[in-house]
Amino acid sequence: MTLILRRDAGAVRHLTLNAPDRLNALSDAMLAALDAECAELEQDRSIRVVTLGGAGRAFCAGHDLAEMQAARQAEDAGRAAFADLFARCSALMQRLQGLPQPVIARVHGVAAAAGCQLVATCDMAVAADSARFGVNGVNLGLFCSTPMVALSRNAPAKHVFEMLVTGEFVDAPRARELGLVNRVVPEGDLYTAAEDLADTVAAKLGSAVRIGKQAFYRQRELTLAQAYAYTGEVMVQNMLDVGTEEGIAAFLEKREPDWPQ
Amino acid sequence: MTLILRRDAGAVRHLTLNAPDRLNALSDAMLAALDAECAELEQDRSIRVVTLGGAGRAFCAGHDLAEMQAARQAEDAGRAAFADLFARCSALMQRLQGLPQPVIARVHGVAAAAGCQLVATCDMAVAADSARFGVNGVNLGLFCSTPMVALSRNAPAKHVFEMLVTGEFVDAPRARELGLVNRVVPEGDLYTAAEDLADTVAAKLGSAVRIGKQAFYRQRELTLAQAYAYTGEVMVQNMLDVGTEEGIAAFLEKREPDWPQ
Amino acid sequence: MTLILRRDAGAVRHLTLNAPDRLNALSDAMLAALDAECAELEQDRSIRVVTLGGAGRAFCAGHDLAEMQAARQAEDAGRAAFADLFARCSALMQRLQGLPQPVIARVHGVAAAAGCQLVATCDMAVAADSARFGVNGVNLGLFCSTPMVALSRNAPAKHVFEMLVTGEFVDAPRARELGLVNRVVPEGDLYTAAEDLADTVAAKLGSAVRIGKQAFYRQRELTLAQAYAYTGEVMVQNMLDVGTEEGIAAFLEKREPDWPQ
Repeated sequence: MTLILRRDAGAVRHLTLNAPDRLNALSDAMLAALDAECAELEQDRSIRVVTLGGAGRAFCAGHDLAEMQAARQAEDAGRAAFADLFARCSALMQRLQGLPQPVIARVHGVAAAAGCQLVATCDMAVAADSARFGVNGVNLGLFCSTPMVALSRNAPAKHVFEMLVTGEFVDAPRARELGLVNRVVPEGDLYTAAEDLADTVAAKLGSAVRIGKQAFYRQRELTLAQAYAYTGEVMVQNMLDVGTEEGIAAFLEKREPDWPQ
Repeated sequence: MTLILRRDAGAVRHLTLNAPDRLNALSDAMLAALDAECAELEQDRSIRVVTLGGAGRAFCAGHDLAEMQAARQAEDAGRAAFADLFARCSALMQRLQGLPQPVIARVHGVAAAAGCQLVATCDMAVAADSARFGVNGVNLGLFCSTPMVALSRNAPAKHVFEMLVTGEFVDAPRARELGLVNRVVPEGDLYTAAEDLADTVAAKLGSAVRIGKQAFYRQRELTLAQAYAYTGEVMVQNMLDVGTEEGIAAFLEKREPDWPQ
Repeated sequence: MTLILRRDAGAVRHLTLNAPDRLNALSDAMLAALDAECAELEQDRSIRVVTLGGAGRAFCAGHDLAEMQAARQAEDAGRAAFADLFARCSALMQRLQGLPQPVIARVHGVAAAAGCQLVATCDMAVAADSARFGVNGVNLGLFCSTPMVALSRNAPAKHVFEMLVTGEFVDAPRARELGLVNRVVPEGDLYTAAEDLADTVAAKLGSAVRIGKQAFYRQRELTLAQAYAYTGEVMVQNMLDVGTEEGIAAFLEKREPDWPQ
């Protein structure tokens, strides 16, 4: 079975985690499949936006616990396997954030633990009103330490802390208040709502979106002075783009820009 | 025509961008005029709070696109001019934040692109309920990379990202939820509401507000331990101010402080 | 009189500031008493969660102004005493955050200045619906520079700035919107609500919560790449905990974990 389904519509690629029997857990195979998708997307300039959802009744339930537990049979009680797993998972999260395309999570059902981290890692998220979000590893004695890296960069500290130590889930409207989700829609409208948002972004000048996404995350880790110095140079590069010259000309002439689609 | 109108009322200076035909765009002349206002304010201890609004039907529509497009005629296709423009604009934003006086944006109509950055850069903002906020450069192929430096330090990441890649505007109540605006009032009450807030702040001990504003932005860029070490010293300096000695004495004696107004 | 009341219930310690005549001000004696509680808690693995409230009609009104004013009699006009005071207070705030146990503020009445800082410093906070929060030192000419270190790491910049320069108080529902408070309950239910939250956290695997709390604050001060490298190692350590092995096994076998309580 294909672990990740793919549907391209114009410049948008819709990806769907497809291990519904395991609630789309981030198994070794699933992590590898996602990584392979990233590798392709990094090279593919024809795709300008990505959406990411899950097949079956959940978005993603987090790590594959059975697989992790099995690794304890090794001589080192699993240490090397665990270190490798978290390194691969963290590298994938950073690779997703580093993609040239904005990535929109399409969330329904449960987004739990590393599944919730995946939502937080996507640039934007659209959620079904019935979706639920939690970092519930603490209920098993495994604090969601890597997921909190993504969560705490998106949502207020005390509310994230509460989710981490109680393991409790929040619903979609609350997730939007917290900053984990951009839009909440009826479950039946989820795919369409994600498509609409993706199409809106795909209609912009691709080079501008690409340069902007990269700059967004870089400047966040700089001081104010450094961030301005860096983004000032980004703006200059952006201005020298022929598409931008056409875009501004079209605006001043009150017509639609003639951009490659 | 005077590019920036000025009205002083007590210790409050009300500034108004005055290029209504160009929606108060941040042209070279407007940037220079704002910079000159900052230079004066830095030296003027009699002014303790500033408000900043726009004449006509908008707060500020961002950069002057016609002026920018004209710079492409240069031999380097505008590179030097663009680098200079963004350097001046970024320097101005940092100078505004560095002013000894708190600055309150009075926002009506549209605050777009660098105009939205200007709102985010002010220490506080009061908005007419009809005001709209957007970083819509992406619609022209010019991603709002410098504006996002200010926005992403005020509002949640995913919501800022959405504004940046969709170019869509948010209304004033939503801007308040996002942290871009402090207070939303009926349009007819905007000036008065900004005045009230300014007067409240101007009634405090000026030296305490001055030292506090500066410390606010400095400590934000430090680690927790560094921030406490730094602000601890700020508190000591503040305690040694004669106005503070009087303020605490008045409080303990249940009377009004005798402060210079 | 005992400055801090203590009640242990299972693995939860309920602390209560007990200087109601002074609105539980953070006097030299109170700071020392809180510091002594921290010293004990750091060594006590039987206590896994702490709640912190105030006796009388307020949570905590901030520093002891009479004591501070008295220090001006020294030859250096109080400079050394003030430096010592803020250093002790800042060290206490960081020690509270560094405790192995999550700390939940139980807030009623007023949480003012350093009292508001104390709420912001606790990992979570439950508030009575009648509670009020302010950093009102500016009203006396003493800008709340150390409190803002804690506040600005919990709540949006412009709203924190407004509280700092106006000295105005916000109510409990607004404090929750701002991120200063997790839950708001009727005043009569405050103690019970804090107990419930504490009991929920105390039922988790203690070692996981301890390691997780520490990692939460450390990773916040790192870049994304550093944060993932660090928390990945934390996850490995967490996985190698025997309690975690049991927790995951119990989950996979659909039974309750057999954890030491």
